[in-house]
Formats: sequence, structure tokens, C-alpha cells
Amino acid sequence: MNSHNTNKNMCKRIFLNDIVEFLGNQVLYIHGNPEDIELKYLKDPHDLDEFTLDWINPTKSNKQQIAENTKAKAIISTKDIEYSKTLEENGKVLLIVDDPKLCIAKIANAFFVEEVIPGVHQTSIVHPLARIGQNVFIGPNCIIGKCTIGDNVVLEGNNYLYDNVVIKDNVEIHAGAIIGSEAHNFVEDENGVNLKFPHLGSVIIGENVLVGASSIVSRGVLSETNIGNNTKIAQLVIIGANNIIGENCAIRANTMISGSVTIGNNTIIAPSSTIRDQIKIGSNCFIGMGAVVTKNVPDGETWIGNPARKLR
Amino acid sequence: MNSHNTNKNMCKRIFLNDIVEFLGNQVLYIHGNPEDIELKYLKDPHDLDEFTLDWINPTKSNKQQIAENTKAKAIISTKDIEYSKTLEENGKVLLIVDDPKLCIAKIANAFFVEEVIPGVHQTSIVHPLARIGQNVFIGPNCIIGKCTIGDNVVLEGNNYLYDNVVIKDNVEIHAGAIIGSEAHNFVEDENGVNLKFPHLGSVIIGENVLVGASSIVSRGVLSETNIGNNTKIAQLVIIGANNIIGENCAIRANTMISGSVTIGNNTIIAPSSTIRDQIKIGSNCFIGMGAVVTKNVPDGETWIGNPARKLR
Amino acid sequence: MNSHNTNKNMCKRIFLNDIVEFLGNQVLYIHGNPEDIELKYLKDPHDLDEFTLDWINPTKSNKQQIAENTKAKAIISTKDIEYSKTLEENGKVLLIVDDPKLCIAKIANAFFVEEVIPGVHQTSIVHPLARIGQNVFIGPNCIIGKCTIGDNVVLEGNNYLYDNVVIKDNVEIHAGAIIGSEAHNFVEDENGVNLKFPHLGSVIIGENVLVGASSIVSRGVLSETNIGNNTKIAQLVIIGANNIIGENCAIRANTMISGSVTIGNNTIIAPSSTIRDQIKIGSNCFIGMGAVVTKNVPDGETWIGNPARKLR
Repeated sequence: MNSHNTNKNMCKRIFLNDIVEFLGNQVLYIHGNPEDIELKYLKDPHDLDEFTLDWINPTKSNKQQIAENTKAKAIISTKDIEYSKTLEENGKVLLIVDDPKLCIAKIANAFFVEEVIPGVHQTSIVHPLARIGQNVFIGPNCIIGKCTIGDNVVLEGNNYLYDNVVIKDNVEIHAGAIIGSEAHNFVEDENGVNLKFPHLGSVIIGENVLVGASSIVSRGVLSETNIGNNTKIAQLVIIGANNIIGENCAIRANTMISGSVTIGNNTIIAPSSTIRDQIKIGSNCFIGMGAVVTKNVPDGETWIGNPARKLR
Repeated sequence: MNSHNTNKNMCKRIFLNDIVEFLGNQVLYIHGNPEDIELKYLKDPHDLDEFTLDWINPTKSNKQQIAENTKAKAIISTKDIEYSKTLEENGKVLLIVDDPKLCIAKIANAFFVEEVIPGVHQTSIVHPLARIGQNVFIGPNCIIGKCTIGDNVVLEGNNYLYDNVVIKDNVEIHAGAIIGSEAHNFVEDENGVNLKFPHLGSVIIGENVLVGASSIVSRGVLSETNIGNNTKIAQLVIIGANNIIGENCAIRANTMISGSVTIGNNTIIAPSSTIRDQIKIGSNCFIGMGAVVTKNVPDGETWIGNPARKLR
Repeated sequence: MNSHNTNKNMCKRIFLNDIVEFLGNQVLYIHGNPEDIELKYLKDPHDLDEFTLDWINPTKSNKQQIAENTKAKAIISTKDIEYSKTLEENGKVLLIVDDPKLCIAKIANAFFVEEVIPGVHQTSIVHPLARIGQNVFIGPNCIIGKCTIGDNVVLEGNNYLYDNVVIKDNVEIHAGAIIGSEAHNFVEDENGVNLKFPHLGSVIIGENVLVGASSIVSRGVLSETNIGNNTKIAQLVIIGANNIIGENCAIRANTMISGSVTIGNNTIIAPSSTIRDQIKIGSNCFIGMGAVVTKNVPDGETWIGNPARKLR
């Protein structure tokens, strides 16, 4: 029913040789014999057993010790671990790679994530004029307006997509996210009373974008709000109206981006940040946790604090 | 299905003369001939064409240039634009008004917003003892407790209204908003363990109030939480238990207002602000973005920062 | 339909003697005659009448005056109020206790809260392999994955529980809360593009935990996210992946806790706080409103500000 990735629901058996084959030339060297080692889990150190595929974080200082003490039989590591007598005698297998965490992430996605079966849950309501691509999963209790949805899109459930939203291929949207609601835009009328400036624009979500649980992407006022390819939006984020957010950015949880903000590519906005309307943030920037950004941030800079200032 | 305002779904044709008639004596002067000019859109400058009704923001420095370069035929502007030869030769029509943005907002609401057809979506669940006014739209997947809802109310969808909530006329509530949940109120029992102080009160939402997507208005503990007429609440806002919020306020996105806070009229709380419980904020105040307000704020003052201090 | 606590829907009649009996030896002394006094409400001072059970907050300076002026007949107070002639002549009854607020909270829970009738609302979808305990209430529009839910659990409505979530006994979850979604965890691939590290872990919610409206408890990456018994989570809170939160904590509204944070017991995190990933916060700590915590906080300390510093 829900598209949940998990250690616990896997049916097919996984062997270390399958993983060696999958990694191909990312495996620089194999110590020990990978034949007949069955793997069932990816787990944290406090919890693992002989059926766990373990990995050694290259930033740890006691890597050799971790490798020799783990209960796991199969270990992915950088080359600065020695295939010691202890490892050999215990029948451990060491796969040497350049980036163990990246390899584990790839393995997790390829072997340990439950496959999503495309389809529209019967409780979801899809506008008859919505255009839905191939291989799309729409979970329970979704409301899909007159939208355009690409291929291989996953809406986990309880999502609300207003009319005219465009979702490109390979987008993943978690429970409770809302795409296309109006942001806050009011003008004072002759009597000083708030009059809503209605939002007539829409939202375009690029390829491979992820929108986390209960996040909101506001529609534009007179044009579009645009999220670039590969950008990842965490939980309870607000993307304001008319934002133009570049590619491969990370917008972390609880961040609030006001209207008409422009962000370049590969920029990271740490959790609980707030960005004032009209602000331009460049590419390859880092905005610190809890920052309140009230000035433009040039390419490549790190800004932190409330109000945010450049970190030197 | 959803009550979406949009450029793209309009059926009836719109002519500039209809708009001139609608604005009445707000039009101070007309340069050029408004006959037979058809309008299809309100759009931003980078996107507009001859069917767009354009407007010139009075705060811009290069207003004359904007007017002469726009592809639009019809332009709403203040009187400091000259009806130059260029404008005349290109057949442009200039409507001179005092407040172009306010006029555009009125035109957008009157001509470019899809009409909401009253009714209760079949997937919504309304308590049999709820009292629902005339001309009410209740979108999909709403849960409506034993509430009282006035006339011309729009609940866009996926809204959760607890029992005893009172919603007055012309209120608009966006997707995912929750009205009447309990806030956080615990007492320590004899063993030092948290015991919930249950919330027995309710919520009264005044006329013309707007509640943005996924915002929460908590019910009162032993009395009511009260939102004054014309107050506009943005997205992912928390209104705490027993708040008394005045009229025509703007509570911007991601703001958290703790319990028993009192706010006067016409006050603006900028995004991502936090207000401590029991605080009194006066009328006509401005609380800056990301402010953390821990002291009372007298009428008319601007407070900013964490902790917030008066701006002089 | 919804599990709403309220003054207004009670059917059974309540008499002061029932309350005296319920409180037992928590009542140190009774002034006046409690016979035949009927009680209908718990209300705030501005709103009460002779059918209200009133109480005097011990922190008030004018307690005697409040007691003598209240319209209520029955008053719960500490012993520093004198049973004056005025009180006696007006037929007031004074119950003397050590902690009036705690007594009122207990009375509210026992007498003034509508009983929840167990059952699963017909619009909710429960995975066929979910294990649901005794006496469980699942309100409308819930999505319950392959979870384990204990006894006496209340899910108010519109809740989304991903697969593998474990909810222990006496847990209460308010509208819109999401348990078990993925947090934000990405690695850069060879091309510098964000690749999701899928979350294969789950969530364990301890006994007597409360999760407020629209809060999110993220599932762990390779192990569990764990919320200790009696911990109370307010509204729009984010609990990050792999958090280990102790017992009897209070996590106030709009707080964002990043991944792999550890918190001890009896700690209070005030509203709108942000905690950096990997941080350890001890037991009996207090984190101030709007704090941004970037360093470990030892037991018993109070930290405030952005960035947070120890309060001396």
C-alpha cells in the first residue's frame, strides 16, 4: 500500500556476488572469498549480524578495529584497511572501493528497497483531464488536479496537487506534501483592509526532484514557481511563490523561502533557515542552520546567523 | 474539483472595456482607444504578450521605458507616465489610476479567478449536527466535526475541523489546514510525569479570514481561540491555544504563536517568527522575520531579532 | 466522529461530591457544604458561572479577592485562602489541595473529556498485516501501513503511518501527524548529483507518548528512531531519522530535530528550536525558544540563543 523501503519485507535472496557484479569496476579489490555469502540487511553497528553488509566510514579513526570487530562477514571499505590475519582467519570478505557510503547507497537503492508497483490507489482522486505518465505510483488519499505528471513519478500518499502543476519524470513526493497552494500576497484596499492578490500561476517540478513529507511548494502569482532537476526538498519546507530554484540543490527541513527568491545550482540551505522575498542566492552556496537571509548571497559563499552574514 | 484560480481555465472572453467599466471612477484617465482590445492573461513581464493586461509598478525607476517596451496593448499605470508618440503609434492604451497594483488585484479577483461552485465533495465527511451556511464549498477529503460554518466559506480540501469550531462568513481555508486541535499543555503529576491538561475550549474564526495551507489553529483550553475579521494567516503557521488575534492582521508563513497571546489590529508578523506565551502585541505593530518575541510589544512598534528588540 | 474533548457535549450530570470522592485524600480540607452542587463546566474567569468549577492559581497575588469575586460556587485552592465571611455567606465551597492546577487537570480528564469509542473509521485504510491492539481508535482518513499498534491508542484522523512503525500502549496522535517518512539523507554520486540514501529503518513510539497535529517522526536510516515513554511532542515538530529521545520529555511546537540526535529524560525543548544532527542533549535540560543548538548539552543545563549558549 505505501511505498516503503525496508529491510524487513524483501523476498528475493541477495548474495555478495550479486553485489560485486552490480558494483562492477567500482570494486578495486576483493580480499577473501565472496562465494556463498548471503546478505539480508544493511544495519547500524549496534544491531548487525553475519547477514549484514557492513561498511566502514572513511572518516573514522579506528577503521581497522571496526573491521576486525564487526559481526558482519562482508565489509565495504576504502583501501586503508589491511586484510589482517584476524580478518582472514574469521573468513571476512573485504570489498575495497573509493567511496563506501556511495556504494552502500547504490546497493540500498538497488537491492534493499521494496519495488513500487505502479498504479493509482482507489481512494485517490485524479482530475479527468490530468495527464499522467508511464509507471506512476499514486498512493492513497491523493487529490490530483488538472496536472501534468511525467513518467516514474511516486506520490506516496495524502498529497494535494492543485490544478496546472507540472511534475517531470522520476519525481518522488512524500506523504502530506502540497504542490500549488497560494502563498501570502495581499494589497491594502482603499479602506486599509487586506485584499488577496490571487495566484494565477503554477508550479513546475523538475526531473529527479524529491519533495519531503508535508512540504509546500506555492504556485506563482502571475508566472511559475520552478524547482530545478535533482533538487531535494526535505520535510515541512515552504517554497514561496515565484521561486526559481536551480538544479541539484538541497533545501533542508523546516526551511521557509519567501516569494520571488532565486537560487542557483548545487546550493545547500540548512534546516530552519528563512530567506526573505526577492533575495538572490548564487550557486554552490551554503546557508547555515537557522539563518535568516536578508541580503543577496554571491556564488560559492557560506552565510550564517540571524541576520545572516558571510562566514570568512 | 479544486478551487484553483488560474489564467488557463477561463471560458468567458474579457475585453478591456469590461475592465474599464468595472473599475469605474478608479480610472482617472484613458489614453488611446480601449475598443476591441481582448485580454486573456495577467502575466509577469518576461512572459507577456498582446493579450496580457500589463501594469507598471509605481516604485520602478524606468516606468516610461517599461511601458514603451511591453508587448502588451493595455497598460495600467499611475499618471507619471507620459502618453508618448511611441505608445500612441503602437496603439497602446493606458489606463491611469492611483494604485495600479490594487486595481490589478481587483481585476484578478473579478475576471481571472475561476468561480467556485458551492457544494460538498463526496469524499468529505460532515458531522450530522454541523451547521453549514449558504454557498459553501467543501473540497475533497475534509473532516468536519460538529461545527458552525457561515456563508460563502471555502475549504479547499483535506481540511480537518474539530468539533465546536465556528467559522464565520467569507472565510477561505487552504489545503491541509487543521482547525481546533489541542496545543501543548501539560502539568507534572505527583511522580513528575507529564499529564495532559485537556483542551475543552474551541476556535472562532472571524469573517474574511484566510488560513493558508497546512496551518493549525489550536483550540482554547478553557475558553476560545479567536481570530479577528480580515486577518490573513499564511502557510504552516501555528496559532496557539487561547490566542486573541485582532482584525486585519497578517501572520506570515512558518510563524509560531504560543498560547494565550493577544495581538491587536493591523499588525504584521513576518515569516518564521516565534511569540512566547502570554505575550501582548499591540495594534499596527511589525514583527520582523525570524524574530523571537519574549516581551510585550506596544502599539505601533517594530521589533526584530532573536531575542526581539525594538527597532529605533 | 472525532475524538474531541469538550465542555459542550457531556451527557452525564456531575456533582461536586463526585469530584471530592474522585480526588480522595488529595483534598486536605473542605470549607462549606459540597452537597447538591452541580457542575457543568471548567472555564476561564471571564466566562464562568455558578455551574463552573473554578480554581485559584497559587502564583496569583490576589487569590483571596479572586475567590470572593468569582461567580462559581465551588473553588479549588491552596490553603493560603481564608474561608472568609463573604465566602461563607455566599454559600461558596472551598476544596483545599496542594496543587490546584494538577487537580483540575485530573478532573478535566476524568469528568469533562468525551469518551473515545474504540473503532476504525470506515474511511481509514489499514494494512491487512498490521497488528492492532485492544481498545484502539483510528479516526477518519488514516493510512496505516504494516504496523504494530498497542492497546488504548488514539489516532485522531488523517494520520499516515508508514510500514514497520511500532506504536506502544496509550499513545495519542493528533490530526495530520506522519510517522515513518524518510528524512533528508543524500550522498553525492560520481557526477556530484544528489543520490538518496534510502531509509530502511523504522520508528518505535513508547507508551503514553503524544504526537501533536501535523508533526513528523522520521524513520531511521539503518536502525530505529525511538521516542521514550511519556514524551510529549507538540504540533508541526520534526523528529529526525535515528533520534533516540528519552522519557518524559517535552518537545514543543515548530521544533526541528535533525538526524541521529540523542536526548535524555525529562528534557524540555521550547518552541521553534533547531538541533543539529549528531548532537547529544542530556537529561533535565532546558533548550530555550528559538535556540539553534550546535554543541552537546550536558545534563541539567539550560541553553538559549542562536547559536545556543549555556545560560549561567
